[in-house]
Amino acid sequence: MIGHLVLIGVGLIGGSLSLALRRAGKVHRVTGVARHASTLNRAKERGIIDDARLDAAEAVRDADMVLLAVPMRSYAPVFDAIREAVSDRCIVTDAGSTKQYALDMAHRHLANPAMFVPAHPIAGTEQSGPDAAFADLFTGRLCVLTPEADTDPQAVDRVARMWESVGCRIVRMAASDHDDFLAAVSHLPHLAAYALVNAVRRSQGKDEDHDPFRFAAGGFRDFSRIASSSPEMWRDIALSNRQALLRKIDDLQQELSRIRQALEKEDGEWLLQSFSEAKQARDAWLKTHGGDV
Amino acid sequence: MIGHLVLIGVGLIGGSLSLALRRAGKVHRVTGVARHASTLNRAKERGIIDDARLDAAEAVRDADMVLLAVPMRSYAPVFDAIREAVSDRCIVTDAGSTKQYALDMAHRHLANPAMFVPAHPIAGTEQSGPDAAFADLFTGRLCVLTPEADTDPQAVDRVARMWESVGCRIVRMAASDHDDFLAAVSHLPHLAAYALVNAVRRSQGKDEDHDPFRFAAGGFRDFSRIASSSPEMWRDIALSNRQALLRKIDDLQQELSRIRQALEKEDGEWLLQSFSEAKQARDAWLKTHGGDV
Repeated sequence: MIGHLVLIGVGLIGGSLSLALRRAGKVHRVTGVARHASTLNRAKERGIIDDARLDAAEAVRDADMVLLAVPMRSYAPVFDAIREAVSDRCIVTDAGSTKQYALDMAHRHLANPAMFVPAHPIAGTEQSGPDAAFADLFTGRLCVLTPEADTDPQAVDRVARMWESVGCRIVRMAASDHDDFLAAVSHLPHLAAYALVNAVRRSQGKDEDHDPFRFAAGGFRDFSRIASSSPEMWRDIALSNRQALLRKIDDLQQELSRIRQALEKEDGEWLLQSFSEAKQARDAWLKTHGGDV
Repeated sequence: MIGHLVLIGVGLIGGSLSLALRRAGKVHRVTGVARHASTLNRAKERGIIDDARLDAAEAVRDADMVLLAVPMRSYAPVFDAIREAVSDRCIVTDAGSTKQYALDMAHRHLANPAMFVPAHPIAGTEQSGPDAAFADLFTGRLCVLTPEADTDPQAVDRVARMWESVGCRIVRMAASDHDDFLAAVSHLPHLAAYALVNAVRRSQGKDEDHDPFRFAAGGFRDFSRIASSSPEMWRDIALSNRQALLRKIDDLQQELSRIRQALEKEDGEWLLQSFSEAKQARDAWLKTHGGDV
């Protein structure tokens, strides 16, 4: 049971966590912090928070747990704002998509980084804001924790139990491994989706007859869904996982160059082999893990 | 009403067309041709065809309409096989994803290319085979016809009416425009999905703890769905729309290089702008066309 939880950010992730914790009876009081009063009002209307604050320092003064659920670029200013206000026994945690960056910011901007527990519940939709929140978002999902050697073990346990109580399975690993894996299966696909949609956009002709979007169907819809995600959030994820992502972009460029070369040479055998390997890997993933997502 | 329809290929596309035509009462008799007796048996069990033939020439002898619904690489051998057997008044049509190639093959391998009507119903799933067929596949979808100046106008009308009777909206355009548009919104995304899955596959470590696929979630599932498509079919589409696709791969590589450069320079403003433009275009597409797919 968490006494007083303070959510910095009451959108899809923060909002869904609160709704799920309340349903499970695992939190006593939830205070929400956001930049705009309208967001906080909406979160209150939806039963996500009990109290609303525009000032983070004021909000966290008697908090047992503070959870950051904001774009990663806000970590430094948020940590600075709460630095003096959080008590020694208060756990600070987050739900961001890149973990080495979160740790770096905690070390630079928090007085007691040992009480910071980096966490990443692997769940989301392309929607954002308090209206997108729903209590089942985390059911059956992985939540990755990436504590360091000197992170407070009891704090880690409490964060693990919180995510378990809303249906997550916990995995612990090094932040750098997490960032590398997520760059491959999540961050790179998002950049590729943005790139693909922009490639189509740039090829649009002057009139409706020459609009390739007219001919987009189910494949395009699913492929491009993640291009409807929050640009601000993905800018921050890209910048905060920059080194890993640069490597992954190179990997994708190399794969595309291989395909291009085979196509240039009309090497049907190579193409068939390559497409078959991808299909096999994707079908295997769907069978073992796909049911969870 | 079509008297005798011969389907070369009784999988997702051919099978769904037959189920839809039968439901609408628009076909008298359907004969199926496939390479394997087991496929034909399954198509018969599912009520897709009345008669089954392994020999295409024999099947088409008294056909009113012959429809190719096979990977594009089979067009030349199929046309060769039926060349002497089709009557002068028999319409030959197809449902392939690239249209200039279909026309080229018809000119090279059919005795009377004026009776060939190139068509592309823009519908499909990542499944294949007679078991994947369903009567509603074409409801509300576009069907593009790309006849040439000397294509028989009555044949074009009959093919248009056939697709209309199963729920398609008809668009006519030049084969080269079709191929260029489809390369952008369908063929390139398929290649990109295969490339992305292969990039993840190549980054897999030696044990389960280092398997990035474990961390793939909803974004990956949707993005990679089309990588579960038939590798044979997509090899053929890629090869038969080679020139357009080479250009589109270059476009995508250029988009990726732009993102890479901005990331390298930590140019958050550029990334936000680029992602926002993609989101805007995708959201606009979903609003105007997305409901149809």
